[in-house]
Amino acid sequence: MSNQIAVGIDLGGTNIVTALITDDGAVVGMASRRTDAQRGAENVVSEMAESVRQLIEKHSVPINDVVGLGIGAPGPLRLREGMIHRSANLPGWQDVPIRQWLQEKSELPVQLENDANAAAYAEHWVGAGKGAGDLVTLTLGTGIGAGSIIDGEILRGHFQNAAEFGHTIVELDGRPCTCGQRGCLEQYASPGNIAKYAIEQIRKGSKSSLGPVLKANGAFDSQAIAEAALAGDSLADTIWDEACRYIALACVNIQHTVNPEILVLAGGMSKSGDFLLGRVRQHFAAQSWKIFDDAPRIVLSELGGNAGVIGAAGLAWKAHHNGTASINFASGVRSAE
Amino acid sequence: MSNQIAVGIDLGGTNIVTALITDDGAVVGMASRRTDAQRGAENVVSEMAESVRQLIEKHSVPINDVVGLGIGAPGPLRLREGMIHRSANLPGWQDVPIRQWLQEKSELPVQLENDANAAAYAEHWVGAGKGAGDLVTLTLGTGIGAGSIIDGEILRGHFQNAAEFGHTIVELDGRPCTCGQRGCLEQYASPGNIAKYAIEQIRKGSKSSLGPVLKANGAFDSQAIAEAALAGDSLADTIWDEACRYIALACVNIQHTVNPEILVLAGGMSKSGDFLLGRVRQHFAAQSWKIFDDAPRIVLSELGGNAGVIGAAGLAWKAHHNGTASINFASGVRSAE
Repeated sequence: MSNQIAVGIDLGGTNIVTALITDDGAVVGMASRRTDAQRGAENVVSEMAESVRQLIEKHSVPINDVVGLGIGAPGPLRLREGMIHRSANLPGWQDVPIRQWLQEKSELPVQLENDANAAAYAEHWVGAGKGAGDLVTLTLGTGIGAGSIIDGEILRGHFQNAAEFGHTIVELDGRPCTCGQRGCLEQYASPGNIAKYAIEQIRKGSKSSLGPVLKANGAFDSQAIAEAALAGDSLADTIWDEACRYIALACVNIQHTVNPEILVLAGGMSKSGDFLLGRVRQHFAAQSWKIFDDAPRIVLSELGGNAGVIGAAGLAWKAHHNGTASINFASGVRSAE
Repeated sequence: MSNQIAVGIDLGGTNIVTALITDDGAVVGMASRRTDAQRGAENVVSEMAESVRQLIEKHSVPINDVVGLGIGAPGPLRLREGMIHRSANLPGWQDVPIRQWLQEKSELPVQLENDANAAAYAEHWVGAGKGAGDLVTLTLGTGIGAGSIIDGEILRGHFQNAAEFGHTIVELDGRPCTCGQRGCLEQYASPGNIAKYAIEQIRKGSKSSLGPVLKANGAFDSQAIAEAALAGDSLADTIWDEACRYIALACVNIQHTVNPEILVLAGGMSKSGDFLLGRVRQHFAAQSWKIFDDAPRIVLSELGGNAGVIGAAGLAWKAHHNGTASINFASGVRSAE
C-alpha cells in the first residue's frame, strides 16, 4: 500500500506538467514539457501518455502500484462525457474526448477535472485549507480561475461549470471581456489585465517609474506593478489597490453565496504575498457587513503553481478510495485494481 | 401512512402562517395570525404552538399522524443551535432557541430553516423547479432573499449563511444598505427600494403618472411602478427596467457561481409576472456569455407566498423520511415515530 502512487497532469496552454503524488500529497517526481496545442489534440494526448510512462519508469514505479491518473484541464469542459469542450488556451480543440484517449493510451483509470477546481481540491486536501470542509480558491493567473469545495466535494453545478468567479460581473456595462460579457471581475483584477491597463495608462502619458521599464522591455507584469507600488510609485499603487478592491468585492460576494470557511488567493498575483493579502483583507473589512460574523479567513495559497497537478492526482486518489476508478474501453469496463 | 401530515410555519415580521401539508406538498389547512414580535419571543413561540394545536384540532388530525414541524424564520440564524440569532423583522430577539422551545411546547420534532432557503426547497420539492436537482430562488420581497438547492440539498455554507444574494455587491461603493455594506443588489432591485427610489425621484420633481398617486396615498409599491410602466410612464419604465437589469446581473453571477438548472423569481415583484420575467430574460441574454451553453432557465415561482410554509413542512417530511426527526428535551431524546 505504502508504495502506491497517483499520477497528476496539469494541462496548460503553454506546458504540460506531470507528477507522481503519494496518498498524503507529497510530490515524488515531476516533469514538464511544452504543450504545442496546435499539433492537434491526439498528438498532445499521446505525448502526455508518453510523459507519464517516462516519469513512472524514471522513478522505478511498478505499473501495478499506480492507482490512477487525474488531469486538470482548462475549461469549459464536458465533464460527464470526459471532454474538453473548447478553450482559449488550446486553439483548435473542440470536444476532445481526452479521458477516453488518455485511458486507452495509459491503461490507467483517468479522472478529468477543470484545472481551477483541481487546484481548489488540492488546497483543501493538503494545502492552505487542509482540514476545512468548505473552501473557495481564486486563482489570479492570466485570467481568474476559481473552485468551490463544499463538505469536501467540488461544487460543479448542473452544467458542470460552477465557480467561474472570474466572469461574475462587478461593473454593469463595464470593460468588455474576452468571454463576450462586460464588466467581468477578470477585467479589473487579473494580473494580465492590470498590467495591460497600466501599460495603456503609461502610453497615454501617465507618469510612472514603470515608464522606463516599458520602454526597455516592451512590457511588464503584475509583479513589476506590485514592486513599483511598494517603492512608492503612485500610478502603480493606484492600479494595484483598485485590483485589490475588486478582489475584495469578489470575496464579499463569495461570502454571501458559498459562505466558505477559507478563501484562498492563488496564481501569479499571490507571489506578491502580504502586499496582496494585506490590501485584499483591508478592502474586505471595509466592504463586508458586520451584522453577522461569517467572514471567511482569507489566506494565500500554500501549493502555488503545483496546486493543479497535486489536485488532479488527489482526485485520482479519491476515485481509487471511493472505488469509482475504472477504465471504460470501447470493448467494456475494466476495474482499476 | 396516507393520513400522515407535516406542519409548516412561516414566521414573518408581520404574520405567522401555519399550514398542514401532505407528503406530496398539498395544503390541507392554513391559518394566519399577527406576529407582534415585541411581545417577546417566548410569548410568540407559545402562540405558534397554540396555533399548531388549533389547526390540527380543526382538521381532526390525530396527533400521532403528525410527522413533525418545520419552521422557516428570517435570518441570520444559528442553525446548528436551532436559534434565531437576530432579525431586523423581529425587534429585540437575540439568540432565541426557537427549535427547543417549539419542540417542548408542541411535542413534535422541529426543523428550523432560513425562510428563503425553505422557499427554495419548496420550489424544488413541488414548485417551479420540481424534478430539477439544482435550483436557485431569488425572492424579491421587502429585501431580497435567496436559497440554493444543489443535488436536492440546501447549500448552507460553513457559517450556515450561504445564498444571501441580496447582499452581493453589484456596485462598488454604491448605495448604502441597511446591512452596513454599500452597493448591495437589494438596494437596486428589491420592490421596497425601487418604490422608495421612485418616490424620491418624484419628490425631487420628476414627472410621472405616479405623482398624483403619491399625493393621494403618501406612498405606492413596486406593482404600481410596473403598472405605470406598462401604461407608458417613462420614469416608472426607467426604474423598473433598471431593477430588471440588476436582477439579470445577479442571475449571470448565479450562473457563474452555483450554475443551477433553474432560477426561480419569487416574492412581491414576481406578481407582475411576464413583465418581470420578460425584462429579466432580455437583460440576462444581453449580459451573459455565449461561449458555453450553461444559462439557467429563468422562471416565475409557482408557489408564490406559500413557498416558505410549504418548504418548512417539506423539510419536516424530509427529516421524517431520513429518520433524523427527533425531539431533544433537556431530559433526553425521544425519537419521532
